[in-house]
Amino acid sequence: MKHITNEELGKLERNYRANLVNSITGYKSANLIGTKSLAGETNLAIFSSVVHLGANPALVGFIQRPDNGYRHTYENIKQAGFYTINHVHEGFIPNAHFTSAKFPLGISEFKSCGLEEEFLDGFYAPFVKQSRVKIGLRFLQEIPIELNDTILVIGQIEHLHFPESIVQSNGLLDLNQVSDVCVSGLDTYLKVSHPSSFPYAKVENVPEYLK
Amino acid sequence: MKHITNEELGKLERNYRANLVNSITGYKSANLIGTKSLAGETNLAIFSSVVHLGANPALVGFIQRPDNGYRHTYENIKQAGFYTINHVHEGFIPNAHFTSAKFPLGISEFKSCGLEEEFLDGFYAPFVKQSRVKIGLRFLQEIPIELNDTILVIGQIEHLHFPESIVQSNGLLDLNQVSDVCVSGLDTYLKVSHPSSFPYAKVENVPEYLK
Repeated sequence: MKHITNEELGKLERNYRANLVNSITGYKSANLIGTKSLAGETNLAIFSSVVHLGANPALVGFIQRPDNGYRHTYENIKQAGFYTINHVHEGFIPNAHFTSAKFPLGISEFKSCGLEEEFLDGFYAPFVKQSRVKIGLRFLQEIPIELNDTILVIGQIEHLHFPESIVQSNGLLDLNQVSDVCVSGLDTYLKVSHPSSFPYAKVENVPEYLK
Repeated sequence: MKHITNEELGKLERNYRANLVNSITGYKSANLIGTKSLAGETNLAIFSSVVHLGANPALVGFIQRPDNGYRHTYENIKQAGFYTINHVHEGFIPNAHFTSAKFPLGISEFKSCGLEEEFLDGFYAPFVKQSRVKIGLRFLQEIPIELNDTILVIGQIEHLHFPESIVQSNGLLDLNQVSDVCVSGLDTYLKVSHPSSFPYAKVENVPEYLK
């Protein structure tokens, strides 16, 4: 086994360290966040840091990186108060990946990366037409993480859109049916398959063969 | 397409809503968090909310759910200041899943779920011997999320352990080689395969065929 200490991490070349540390938390979700400024300019950007915060109220978070002059997603959310989260599936991985390029303000990643805006039920922010699972969110709160100048952005789910055929009897969405992918590190996308499910874990139903 | 509004979400049966909302953020990482109280009792619990916060300093977060009387992970972290994050792979999915049962204080999930404690380099918290990618962390900060009484727990990476053969020339770990799995919803585990990688996205290298 390779062992790397915190001190050794600090001495690694910057990109090598970024890849390593971005991959050590395991597989991540692949989501496109869609926004529209008050001036009407749309923006789309891929995020792998979307995190479930709670089901009731239905809250979702994501981590906004430090200001590098290209935080259009964050700025549009702060302006308009609404945004969308759209799952990435096998059919448009490169389109989703290249939304992370630093396009200047006024250039929409939708057009530049071959993805189509979709406005549903009068919701302000654009959904991604190609996505099969889409969430419309209302911005609720931002929590600064001062340790590294990032921000936890929290939104409440206002709308859910998904193919009716993928919801199971217990409420779980079968993301396999829509070929959703996951992410490792900064630039690697992977297929997901072979779901196996287990009952709600209780002390009295832990299988004997495990012990 | 099925459309569910926030108001309709609030009226769903509790477990159905939990499954649905837990699956709509996409695939999640599967990690076991290992801790040890100051009295020496070890604890192990599965989390799907581990999130990368930044590479320099190397920070990792996870979401601690509201207090239900079984927050042994959180309490041990607050007591001892150290914890481990251990990837779940295909070889021990049920063992990992059943750590979420509400075992009383004093009963270690390691023993009850057939996983082995491993102490490395004098680090206080136990690693999972069966895991192939393991992180030792120092607790840095907790940030309360008052909207739903959860907590963002932030730690700094002190130690990384992984098989040397899985680190690629750019620093990315090939989690496929160690058969890591991902999670959907509350109880479904999936295999991951077929990685495809793309170059760092720049405005000038967006492929023409995407536009």
